[in-house]
Amino acid sequence: MNTIIKEDFKIITGGITAPKGFQAAGNHIGIKKYKKDLAIIFSKIPANASAVFTKNKLKAPPLLWCEKLIKNEEKIQAIVINSGNANACTGQRGYDDAVKTAQTLAQSLNINQNSILATSTGVIGVYLPMKNMIEGIKATVPMLSDDKKSANACAEAILTTDTFTKTITLEIDIEGTPVKIAGIAKGSGMIHPNMATMLNFITTDLNISKPLLDKAFKSNIEESFNMITVDGETSTNDMAVILANGCAQNPIIDKEDINYHKFKNALQYILIYLAKSIVKDGEGATKTIECTIDGAKSKEDAKILCKAILNSNLVKTAFFGKDANWGRIISAMGATCLDFDPNNAKISFISAKGNITLFENGTPVEFDEDLALQILSENEIKVIVNLKDGNAQITGWGSDLTYDYVKINAEYRS
Amino acid sequence: MNTIIKEDFKIITGGITAPKGFQAAGNHIGIKKYKKDLAIIFSKIPANASAVFTKNKLKAPPLLWCEKLIKNEEKIQAIVINSGNANACTGQRGYDDAVKTAQTLAQSLNINQNSILATSTGVIGVYLPMKNMIEGIKATVPMLSDDKKSANACAEAILTTDTFTKTITLEIDIEGTPVKIAGIAKGSGMIHPNMATMLNFITTDLNISKPLLDKAFKSNIEESFNMITVDGETSTNDMAVILANGCAQNPIIDKEDINYHKFKNALQYILIYLAKSIVKDGEGATKTIECTIDGAKSKEDAKILCKAILNSNLVKTAFFGKDANWGRIISAMGATCLDFDPNNAKISFISAKGNITLFENGTPVEFDEDLALQILSENEIKVIVNLKDGNAQITGWGSDLTYDYVKINAEYRS
Repeated sequence: MNTIIKEDFKIITGGITAPKGFQAAGNHIGIKKYKKDLAIIFSKIPANASAVFTKNKLKAPPLLWCEKLIKNEEKIQAIVINSGNANACTGQRGYDDAVKTAQTLAQSLNINQNSILATSTGVIGVYLPMKNMIEGIKATVPMLSDDKKSANACAEAILTTDTFTKTITLEIDIEGTPVKIAGIAKGSGMIHPNMATMLNFITTDLNISKPLLDKAFKSNIEESFNMITVDGETSTNDMAVILANGCAQNPIIDKEDINYHKFKNALQYILIYLAKSIVKDGEGATKTIECTIDGAKSKEDAKILCKAILNSNLVKTAFFGKDANWGRIISAMGATCLDFDPNNAKISFISAKGNITLFENGTPVEFDEDLALQILSENEIKVIVNLKDGNAQITGWGSDLTYDYVKINAEYRS
Repeated sequence: MNTIIKEDFKIITGGITAPKGFQAAGNHIGIKKYKKDLAIIFSKIPANASAVFTKNKLKAPPLLWCEKLIKNEEKIQAIVINSGNANACTGQRGYDDAVKTAQTLAQSLNINQNSILATSTGVIGVYLPMKNMIEGIKATVPMLSDDKKSANACAEAILTTDTFTKTITLEIDIEGTPVKIAGIAKGSGMIHPNMATMLNFITTDLNISKPLLDKAFKSNIEESFNMITVDGETSTNDMAVILANGCAQNPIIDKEDINYHKFKNALQYILIYLAKSIVKDGEGATKTIECTIDGAKSKEDAKILCKAILNSNLVKTAFFGKDANWGRIISAMGATCLDFDPNNAKISFISAKGNITLFENGTPVEFDEDLALQILSENEIKVIVNLKDGNAQITGWGSDLTYDYVKINAEYRS
């Protein structure tokens, strides 16, 4: 993940409708008071799809619907997303509402309901307002377009309390054919009281077999969305999906050749970009912390240590306070009870202002407090932990813990 | 733990020197600027001892010394505790300093150094000021006394940024002989930047065999200190120890008879009292949350679910915000990925102001928002989760997450 070859793709504008054959729309249908709350993504032809869903035991009903379609290897032609209501903890009625949502869109688009993913984000434990949903979907379908404005409206309509839209578009070249890949995301954590969810939607006009689309997507997820944390909470509605409709008409990718790796590499860039955007827009966050564990015995160990650091409230408040507190980092690692030798460990901080080593060979290193303060005053800080214990490496991203996190999450539900 | 028979003991005054044969002292020796920073507990005769130590991989050097003595089943005659410096992450020199501390006290008291536990709490990564330690120990030994004032001074000297001393004394009757048990504790979490540790010291004049002392202590620890959380952080210096010197001269307890259970029951009351005091004095805490998981498949499952709730930043901020947010509770439980059926779960809140059920049989229950606000405005709130899935039950304690937690932990090291 640290070896993305940027030469193999170019970053372009356009958004989720840049890949050929995709249209999108975003509309306000009255679930939220004023903001857009319904998004539709549509592919002219059914697309190969791959998806991952929250591991939370309380998977929201719409995710059960989506999961069923993905499990049955249905080709997917449309995604409908409402924001403002997560349709979570709503039982059988919630599931029926998700199916009804897909049916409504199927009728409007005159396509098979089993080709429609329906998902939700917002308040937990409230039934979907189905009158708004049905009328809203019917009103939004005519707005579907492949222009940039519609792509932006779609990216906006999936947000809850995010402070900015998250979107990225890349172009790669497959045997002389230009192929586009685009992604949108909405904010992490459970931002507002009772609000949930991280959502990610990727479109591409690449012609790729379903098994290889799955492989590229899922292996990249592990080192992007699965390596970020804002507050260690896994929502009931977390989901990421990619649609590949083949409209670019490149020679099909059906083996792990150079073209596959070119695509996988570009997709990885997109997923990490979106993952980092989510962290940057985390609840009350003032800083993005990039933590790399190097020299670990195994990747699994590295992941556990990395997440222990990024999830520690004490580490997070120290970064908010610009405190070069290596003690909390080593203690958070120690608390995992993993088998590593702290006497070999080295801890350094890097930012645009320079770098310092704070801890080495089991003991504190004297460091320049002024330089440390300068480094920690930046908005993007890298923590490098070298365990000198093996060859495994991982990078993850998190944020600081601030007054605003408490404020945002302690507000009485209104 | 919910079946403590209060009739079997009485709560008395006196503190850690109330049990016969124990003396204590607390003094200021210059590690901290103004506050007491050295405590000694002394038993006239060597005592049976049992102890538990942090599971953090970065166990502080003094704990390695203590652990060695406990492992060798040494009888313990004194404990020396300094506050203001944790002697953690200090390597071999830190270990040598801990041994030297024990040696110094051994010489002053004219007892075996292998009967002396030496432990520390405070800043991580700074070497102990051994001149202060050596001179301070010599100056403090003559202050040892069994009076209440010395017991209080001792309870005070182990604190770091705790806001109050934590002490309790009970009396039980063993075959007509009065036996006393007393405990002191210092605050949880890593309260000040780089500060660490939960420490607990229990004295009793009970005559009990070492194996049964171990059994009573360790089984009680599981449902007291191991069931509290302030910020999910396990310090480098956490430790709890009990000394039983037999000075009450009761017929020895060497089997699990009624007398053993009478003692175990009283000890459990002490440990839960101290554990709850630590939570109450947690960093920036305004509320104590008591969470009971009932009807779980196994005790292990119940523990994981209970801690997931108490450690969730979203749950903690909701309590700070007086928000009856069952959605965050059920989501925190779901995120554990344990096998339980949310469709059977019931969630209720109880405080001095009344009780309400918010969630039952997989769906939200309509509740009186005014009553909920009243219940959540109290300082002590009980969360009852019934899974209706089995017979296992557990109770744990945590606190809310507040602006002051962030403030305390984000302050730049001074």
